[in-house]
This record gives sequence, structure tokens and C-alpha cells, in this order.
Amino acid sequence: MIKMGVIGCGYWGPNLIRNFAAQQGAQLAYISDLDEKRLGHVGLVYPAAKKTTNYREILEDPEVQAVVVATPMSTHFPLGREVLEAGKHLFLEKPMATTSDDCRTLNALAKARGLQIMVGHTFVYTPAVRKIKTLMEAGELGEIYYVNISRVNLGLFQKDANVVWDLAPHDVAMLNHLFGADPVAVSAIGHCYVQKELGIEDVAFVTLEYPGKRLVHIHVSWLDPNKVRLCTFVGSRKMLVYDDVSPSEKIRVYDKGVDVQPHYENFGEFQLLYRSGDVFIPRLDTVEPLKAETTHFLDVIKGTATPLSSGEHGLRVVQVLEGACRSMAENGRQVDLKYDA
Amino acid sequence: MIKMGVIGCGYWGPNLIRNFAAQQGAQLAYISDLDEKRLGHVGLVYPAAKKTTNYREILEDPEVQAVVVATPMSTHFPLGREVLEAGKHLFLEKPMATTSDDCRTLNALAKARGLQIMVGHTFVYTPAVRKIKTLMEAGELGEIYYVNISRVNLGLFQKDANVVWDLAPHDVAMLNHLFGADPVAVSAIGHCYVQKELGIEDVAFVTLEYPGKRLVHIHVSWLDPNKVRLCTFVGSRKMLVYDDVSPSEKIRVYDKGVDVQPHYENFGEFQLLYRSGDVFIPRLDTVEPLKAETTHFLDVIKGTATPLSSGEHGLRVVQVLEGACRSMAENGRQVDLKYDA
Amino acid sequence: MIKMGVIGCGYWGPNLIRNFAAQQGAQLAYISDLDEKRLGHVGLVYPAAKKTTNYREILEDPEVQAVVVATPMSTHFPLGREVLEAGKHLFLEKPMATTSDDCRTLNALAKARGLQIMVGHTFVYTPAVRKIKTLMEAGELGEIYYVNISRVNLGLFQKDANVVWDLAPHDVAMLNHLFGADPVAVSAIGHCYVQKELGIEDVAFVTLEYPGKRLVHIHVSWLDPNKVRLCTFVGSRKMLVYDDVSPSEKIRVYDKGVDVQPHYENFGEFQLLYRSGDVFIPRLDTVEPLKAETTHFLDVIKGTATPLSSGEHGLRVVQVLEGACRSMAENGRQVDLKYDA
Amino acid sequence: MIKMGVIGCGYWGPNLIRNFAAQQGAQLAYISDLDEKRLGHVGLVYPAAKKTTNYREILEDPEVQAVVVATPMSTHFPLGREVLEAGKHLFLEKPMATTSDDCRTLNALAKARGLQIMVGHTFVYTPAVRKIKTLMEAGELGEIYYVNISRVNLGLFQKDANVVWDLAPHDVAMLNHLFGADPVAVSAIGHCYVQKELGIEDVAFVTLEYPGKRLVHIHVSWLDPNKVRLCTFVGSRKMLVYDDVSPSEKIRVYDKGVDVQPHYENFGEFQLLYRSGDVFIPRLDTVEPLKAETTHFLDVIKGTATPLSSGEHGLRVVQVLEGACRSMAENGRQVDLKYDA
Repeated sequence: MIKMGVIGCGYWGPNLIRNFAAQQGAQLAYISDLDEKRLGHVGLVYPAAKKTTNYREILEDPEVQAVVVATPMSTHFPLGREVLEAGKHLFLEKPMATTSDDCRTLNALAKARGLQIMVGHTFVYTPAVRKIKTLMEAGELGEIYYVNISRVNLGLFQKDANVVWDLAPHDVAMLNHLFGADPVAVSAIGHCYVQKELGIEDVAFVTLEYPGKRLVHIHVSWLDPNKVRLCTFVGSRKMLVYDDVSPSEKIRVYDKGVDVQPHYENFGEFQLLYRSGDVFIPRLDTVEPLKAETTHFLDVIKGTATPLSSGEHGLRVVQVLEGACRSMAENGRQVDLKYDA
Repeated sequence: MIKMGVIGCGYWGPNLIRNFAAQQGAQLAYISDLDEKRLGHVGLVYPAAKKTTNYREILEDPEVQAVVVATPMSTHFPLGREVLEAGKHLFLEKPMATTSDDCRTLNALAKARGLQIMVGHTFVYTPAVRKIKTLMEAGELGEIYYVNISRVNLGLFQKDANVVWDLAPHDVAMLNHLFGADPVAVSAIGHCYVQKELGIEDVAFVTLEYPGKRLVHIHVSWLDPNKVRLCTFVGSRKMLVYDDVSPSEKIRVYDKGVDVQPHYENFGEFQLLYRSGDVFIPRLDTVEPLKAETTHFLDVIKGTATPLSSGEHGLRVVQVLEGACRSMAENGRQVDLKYDA
Repeated sequence: MIKMGVIGCGYWGPNLIRNFAAQQGAQLAYISDLDEKRLGHVGLVYPAAKKTTNYREILEDPEVQAVVVATPMSTHFPLGREVLEAGKHLFLEKPMATTSDDCRTLNALAKARGLQIMVGHTFVYTPAVRKIKTLMEAGELGEIYYVNISRVNLGLFQKDANVVWDLAPHDVAMLNHLFGADPVAVSAIGHCYVQKELGIEDVAFVTLEYPGKRLVHIHVSWLDPNKVRLCTFVGSRKMLVYDDVSPSEKIRVYDKGVDVQPHYENFGEFQLLYRSGDVFIPRLDTVEPLKAETTHFLDVIKGTATPLSSGEHGLRVVQVLEGACRSMAENGRQVDLKYDA
Repeated sequence: MIKMGVIGCGYWGPNLIRNFAAQQGAQLAYISDLDEKRLGHVGLVYPAAKKTTNYREILEDPEVQAVVVATPMSTHFPLGREVLEAGKHLFLEKPMATTSDDCRTLNALAKARGLQIMVGHTFVYTPAVRKIKTLMEAGELGEIYYVNISRVNLGLFQKDANVVWDLAPHDVAMLNHLFGADPVAVSAIGHCYVQKELGIEDVAFVTLEYPGKRLVHIHVSWLDPNKVRLCTFVGSRKMLVYDDVSPSEKIRVYDKGVDVQPHYENFGEFQLLYRSGDVFIPRLDTVEPLKAETTHFLDVIKGTATPLSSGEHGLRVVQVLEGACRSMAENGRQVDLKYDA
């Protein structure tokens, strides 16, 4: 039984709390938030957990083995460092930190102390992404030419992060995982519409280049009336569309075929020419991604698993985000990415 | 009764032939194509029209008042010039020509001879675009911040034109019409996947800047398993989504509202938070766009209408496409656009 | 070259005219309609065809081999009889006639004169229904338990026919064709909402029993805001959904699997439990059904094909519709169906 | 603080437990299930609640004011009776009991003891149904002619109840609530496919007649590959479609208009004629229905609310289900429904 504490009961924290609480191998010993009212509200369901507005209480409890940090992005680094310095394993929400240097500091600290870091890149643990990885590894799609991603919705505007830091971590973490590689270059163009005076981009177009000339285009936006999470993988053999918003048909595999230009006589036949090939919609497991993710963290602590979204993985995601922001600041100039050996 | 001839029975020609043939005010006197078999096949339905593989027969008939050119893009200019020089009104498929200089030559010729040019920018005549124009002019959307467009499908790869020349004319023509203005700058990034050796881009991302800092992003691609024609207009008051592939719900108007970030406790409630506001789907007329377009051309010849998609309009579309290609050649550098007075 | 005439330029006639006109093996010699204005409007496109408001002109032309009747249902029998008596092959729109006795008379007449009758049950010729037949014959679905059909839309209310006669012929013709068998019993319940005073049912629920206890439920309605054409085939191995309104994904084959009742803990996981098995969407040909149907009619006349929707097939469809109406008149009592040997 | 216990940790119980646990005004004191393993699994998250395989422990605790029964249908009556006899308020999952007599017994007992019964007809508490009620009461739809409902999915086959008892309670409860009236007659036809030997219907068609000749057709099935929850309300002014499976657009209001039969010339225009009128998609609250329902139960206990889904309401639902089953047993004969004054 791994004794744990969670810092942060805001937007995402309650989901982590609920999932760790339901884990057989974990004991949710502490819940912490600076906002007493919020703490009380969330904590109501977990009477056995100790509630505290002072997270240091958790760090000082020698029986606590692991701490979950689900606080605003800017506090990830200082809190994460305290957790590690207190000798606890660390689960850190994404993005890992606001700079790659901070990520490196955390990774070094964990290494020095023999502790584990796992970053909450949930997408890596979804049944859909696991299925895509399986299909890619089986060669179903052939060689990947190009991936096109739309991750847009209305609002959830942030004050301390632009849309790239808010939404793109999902995509970068997913792609690094799927390709088993990190991008070699990034460029990005961003625009500020709603928070013009703050200079916070709410729409951005990011281009990643992975080894082997595989290109990825990501459109992230807080200014779209619909929630769209659509990834199109164009391969030499087949195409795959991953629609994360679809309740029951998240993945579609299309037989690829570029048809010669047909002749047709009328408006009606024209409308029938949408695609060319069978479509296959594989069944996915119905497990909640956070259940898989929290189980994985416990396995990592127990030493029976290696983290899929390790501190190393989290660092590389942050490096890409940094690069994208540098590119945005320079009008879309392509930025080369280099990683520590 | 306006006596007409059509040159080109390929991909789009038969649709124009069918629509002009059904016009009360027009007489489809000639159908022409270099390919005798194709000509015979298409001509079968129109026994009263003279078939010829020599389009000059049409130009030499003094009773013919107007000629429709629906041939490959590279022949638009030479054929269009001959038509005008023969003293006939000209309906030219889009894009008007492969260079803006050629467009200018055609426009000058038409002006000198007192002839009309209309370019087949069909989208300008669709019930959906007419509705959007009405809504925009009524101030329903408020000030437009930003338009995002996806126009992608699988294939119909061309040998003599890249994806920007193939697909983007629709968008530029539509936007120039809707905004009643022309873009002041363009940038574009393109990629060659399938026809790498020919250097023909099959995927491109184009950014237009219209006066008043209104930005448009266009994603055109021949490498997508689904046919997507999706335009999202983000205004200060409302948002509008135009999905041209939807058979019955092409336009949706969303009440805009940027919500503060809510707290929620579980995975289920999270999924419910997709949007915030009523949606309105206006009824559209069911007229075939080409019927409206061909009727309009006859009215233009009769002098009872001014062309919505004139030679001037067609030229400006070509200028934008030229600018986009220049930008692609220079790695996405922004190209300023200047128009003749 | 088969010389032909078409009687009726109303709702459906122009589609038949267009398709026969485009057939290489046919010569559209006559177009006829009682309404001179309608005739002129439709005939405009076909200057080579003779227009007449007196259909007997067609019957009196000894060179005409085949006549198409696309007039209101109540005139199918008298016109069809005249066509056959004039020694011409007959293409009759569906339903074949308003009584089974009239159908029998037509069939006997055709047999006596050595003429062909084909009924315009277009669905039999659609790529979707052909695909379903192929899948069923290959045993993909296993034994069919049950078929559920919704064929509803708003309006197109008729004065001389109820919703069963208007919409159900499609389904009965399709099912008789797919099963290669005719129903042994029918029951139906109908309701009159909009045309209450005329006693014309606008909503009906029809149940057919095919040999082997295969049941079919058909919901037909003129009172639904959406156009729905949805057929669900439930087989012992797989399930198939045929959505005729979908532009590109008309057929879906679902791996069947009845799952034991699972436990789940929260609202979110609950929503994920929609289905259990892969889905397969086969590619369909993009041919216009009417092209296939009109080609088939010419082949039938030439003696190179046996009609899929023969007069015999048309008669059996009418027998089912008669039975359904008898059942409606008797509050849904089940009516046994017997066919001529 | 109302002290409570929950009996039943199976399919639906955990949702009730989670929601009552999160209520400020309630104290989840007991969780009970006969299956020790299941109890342990569910109880893990609620360490403060006492777990017991003997539900009588709950009844014997004099501080417990209310008991929730979420057990298989056949045990609703005996358990409900014991709860009431122990002097506790009763929340009973739907359907209230397997016979109307049992419901009457429970209602009489509650009345005699001054206790409240609330039945878990969740749909009454959904934002969608609340919205529909508001629209109906405002006269938006005009007079309701007819309601058509499909409630189908694959499986969750039950051993102790047919598909009518399993799925139709949702619809009957919703309609009685929306109409503020109870049906005067019911007829039903059912079929047994998968559990033929047990004689348990897995597909049924139920027709309800409400006062004022308002008809409702309900198709319930465990044999459909897709989860469908679709209710179409056809009114004299407008039509409303309630699609409970849609994540973000559950309700659509269609301007009604029955169009005269149009002429059209080609296949393409034909496909455009789907509907006639604007569509309005109202925004709905995103509250979880069970949160509203459990809050309501606490208000009922406190005496500040009258139950929307009272024991009286639950009884009448059961009477309709009984009538439907009687009708199924008699081949669809219409059964009149009479209610206690």
C-alpha cells in the first residue's frame, strides 16, 4: 500500500484524486489546496484523507511515498523540487515545467535521490493512442508522410500560458511516443485575438519535423465554437483518422488510393465521389485513461514498470514548446531542436 | 435567345453544358473537345448541339454571342484571348489564368472590345455563401477576427498545378466576395509528398491578411481520407461554421461566449463541456449553384447584371495565388499584395 | 438503337429521361406530359426528342419499341395496358399499379404478347443494396433474425396515396430481392395526422414476416423533420446498418457481440460503453442507381438480361401493400399473404 | 446532515453512492451489497462509510433517515417495504416494483408512516427533458400530434426482465412528466430472438395513447449495433428531436413546414431537399442528472420540495408497463389503462 498525497484540487486534481483513491495499491492519505472552500468541497467525498491548506504537512510525513502535483503550471517546478527534496516520488501534471532548465533540474534531483518522476501526459495512456501505436508498429499505415492535427475549442483561456503551452503538450507527447523519436525542428505562427493586450496567443499553427522528413502540422486554438480533437495520419499504405471527440468511433483506418480524375456528368454523381476504399473502425477498450495512467504510476513506484511519460519524456516535450514559442517570437522562423544525450 | 458554345467536355464542362442547355434564354449551339470519344459521350444527351473537335468553328460562327471555356488551366489564357478577339463574351473556368499578367491582358481586351468576362468562381453563387454574406452584412457575427478553412480530400492530383492553384481559388474568391475587399498580404508553406519528383505541392497552409487585421488560415490538401470543406468564421459577436459537405446543415451560427474555467469532479461532466451557447442552423435555398451562376452570366450579357465574379475579381484571385506560391518558394516569407487601381 | 418514349415529366420522370437520353443504346424519341408548360420546361434540354401532350402519338409510332410510364400511381394500370396493347415493352414506375389484379392483368398481357415489363424499383439497383446482397449471400451476417427500417421525412404528402403506398414499396422491393423470398404475413398500424379529413395515413408501422420467422419492422412517416432511410439488419453473426442518407458511408458492418453486464463506477465510463466490436465500412461503387436501372432495362429488351424488378416482382410488392392496408383497416390484424404459383 | 445508507453496489448503485457522497447535506453512512468482493471494490473510495453485507444493519441504525435501494428489480418491493417499515425515507431505483399492487402497498405504507418515496427516474432530472418541458409549456411546439421514440442498443440482456421493463420506464416516466398526464391506452408487440427459450422479449414496439389523441410510439431493443436514444416530438407548430446520445447537441427544434411536392431535374438537386426550415439547438446546462436527482431527494426529505418522480408517479409507470406486457401476451390487443383516483 503506497501512501500518497495530492497537491491541487482545481481543474484536473479531482480526477487524479478520484483515480488514486480507487486504486487498490494506494492509500490517499492527504489532499491539499490553498483554497479552503475548494478543498472542503472536493474532500467531502474522501473523508479518510487528511485535508490541509499547507502542502508541507504532506512532505513532512515520513510514511508518504509519493506526491501528486496538479497545480498551475508555474508552480510545477518549485513544488516538484520540494517533493523530490523531501524524498518522495513525483507525479507532475503536464507540462512538466515552464522551462527546460527547470525540467533538467528536476530530472537530475530525481536521479540523485533514486526517485521516480512521471508527467501526466494522459494521451499516452488512452486506448486510442495505444491502438494507433500497435497499428503503426504492425506496419498497417506504411511509412508516415504527414500528420495533421486540429486541437481547438472555445475558451478555457489562460492568463499564464498561451494556447501552445495549454494544448500542444498533448500532441507533442503523443507524437514523441508514437514515433519513438523527438522532432528535429519546429516552427510556429501565433496570433492574439481575445487577450491582445496581454500578448497571449489564442490561435497558433505549429509545424514539427521528425526524423525521416515526417512532418506534423498542429492547429491549436481557443477560438472555435466546436471542440475538435482530430489527428489525421497520412501513411504510404493507409490513412488513419483519430477523432478523440467521437464517443464510440475514435479511430478510423482508411484504405488509401489516389484515384485518377474521373469524368462525371452531373451534380449528383459528383457528390458521391468522397473517398475511395474501405474504412475500418477498430474496437477500443473502454478503460478510463486516468485509471491506466494512475495504475502505471504505482507500477513505476513499485519498480515493475518504466514510465512511458518519464521526466525525460516530459523535458523533451517542454523543449519543443520552448522552440515553438521562440519561433512565434521570430515570425515563424524554423528552430532546430537539440536534446541532451 | 443567346447562342453559345462550350469548349471543354472534361471534368467540369458537362456541368456547365447541362446548365446552359437548361436555360430558357440560351441556345447551346456548339460543344467542343479535342477528345472525339469524350465529345461523343457527352454530346449524346444534346443532339441539337453541333459537336466539333475544332473550337475555331465556334469562334467563326457570327451568330455565337458567348463562349464558355472549361479546359485545363494552362489553356485559359490563349483560348480566352481568341474568344475575345473573335468578339464573343467569355465565361472562363477558374482560375482565370496562370499569371496575373495574362488576366490583365484578357481584361484589357474585353474592355477594348466592349465584351464581358465572367470567371467560374461557383462558390460566390452558392446559397450558403449568399447567406453568410447576408448575415455578415447584418452584423450578426460582429467584427470578424479570424477565418479558418480546411479544404482537403484525397487525390484528384493534378500534373500542371499544385494544390494551392487547384483548391485555394474557391476560398480566395469567396473571401474577397464576403469581405468586399482583397488581402493585403499572403504567406504560405507547402509540401510535396506524392509528386515529390515533380515538385508539385499536395499539402499547403496559406495565411491571408485582409484590411483591418482580419486573418484567414487555409489548409488545402490532396492527402486526406475525407473530403472536408470547413470554414470557421470567428467574429466578435458570434461564430459561424460553414460545412459545405453537409447535405442539409451547411451553416451553423454559434452564440459566442468565453466561459471562465469551471471546476468539475469527474470524467463524465468533463465531456459535457463542449460549447456554450445556442446554435442556429438557417434554412438555405436548394437551388443548384451552377444554375444561379449560368443565369447570372446570361443576365450579364443582356446587361441586366454586373458580374459578381468579373475579370477584375478573377485577376485579384490570381494575384493572391501568385503571392502564395512566391511565399512557398521563399519558405513562407510574407508577401505584400498590391492591386491595380 | 432502341427507340423510346417517356410519358410523364413530373417528379421522377426527368430523372428517367436524363438517364435514357444518356444511354448509348437508346434513342429518346418522345417526351410526353399533359402539362404543356412542364413539357416545354423539361423538353428544353432534349431538342431532338418530339414533345407531345398526347401520349398516343408515341404508341402509334411503329418504330418505338419501349415506353416509360412515370405518371401518378392511379394511371399506371390504364397507361401500362395501352402501352402493352400497342406492342411496346413497358417500364413502369413503382408501385406497379394500385391493385394486384391490375398487376396480374398487365403481366398476363405482356406474356401473351411476348413483351417485357420492368418496374422502377430503383433500390434494387443501388450499389448499397447490391453490396448487402453480396454480403448476405457470402454468409457474412449469418442467419438474419430481424430487420428494422425507418423511412421517414417531412411531407411530400400525397392526395391519392397513403404513406405506405408512397414509401414502403422501396422496402418491400428491396427485402424481397435480398431475401429471394416473399413475406408470408403482414400487419400494419397507421395514423392520420395532417390529412385527417381525407383519411390518408401519414405515419405507419408495418411488420412483415418472411419464411424462416425472419421479421421486418418498417416505420414510414411523412411527419419527421429529418430525412431518415435507415435499415438495420440483425444477423446471428454480424449486424449491418444501411444508411441511405449518408453521402459516403452508406453501409456499416458491425461485429456482433452481446456483452455481459459490466460494472462501472462513474458517469464517464458509462458513456463509453456504446458498442462492442470492430466496424467495417465497405467502399461502394459511385454509379448513379438510375444509370444501372436504365441500362438493365435496355439489356432486358435486348434479351441479354432477366429483369430483377419484373412484373412478377412488382405484383408481389403490390400484394404486400394491399395486405398492409387491409391490416391497417382492421386495427393491425395480421394478414396472411398468398402468391400465385 | 441527513444520514443515509445505500443497498446495492452493482450496475447503477455506484453512481448513486458517488452522488450522495458528494452532497453537502448528506452523510453516506452505510454501503451494502451481498457480494463482499463487489462491496469491497466499490467501498474502497468511501472509507468513512460502513460496509456491510447485511443491509438490516442499516435499517436498525436509528440515526439513518433515508435508504437508497439500487438492487435488481425483483427485490425492490421486499427491500422497499422493509425500509419503510423501519421508518426510513426511501429512494428506489426504477422501475418501482414488478407489479402495480406492490407499488400501491409501498405508497400506502409511506403515507401511513409519513415517509417519502422517490423513484430513480433519472430522465425527469436531465437538462434536456427540463428544456423540452419549458419549450412545451411555452407553446413552442404547438399541439403535440405524435412522439416517436427509439431506445435501442446492443445487449445488456437481462434474465429477469424483458426489454420493455428494462428500457421503456425511461420513456413512460419522461412522457408522463412532459405531458403532465398518463396514457389512457397501451398496445405492444414483442419478439424474442436471443433468449427465445426463456421467452424474454428483446425487441418490442409499444404504442401509448395520451389524452387528446396524442400518440407515442416506442421502439425498444437490445438487438441494435448502435446505442440510439432518439425522441421525435411532432407538434402542430414545430418539431423537436431529442438525441440523448449526442454529446453536445441533444435537442434540436425544427421549424415545421409541409412543402408542396417540388419538381426537380436531377439526382443532385434531389439530395438537397432534406428539410424545410431553420433549426435551433438550445444550449443546455451541463449538470450531471444524478446530481440534480440526488439533490432533489434531499430537498424532498427536508420538506422543501415535492418529488417529481414520486411513488405515485412510479406506480403509474408500472401500470403502463403491466399494460404493455398484457398487450404483448395478447398479440398487440389495445389495453385500456385506469388509474386510482
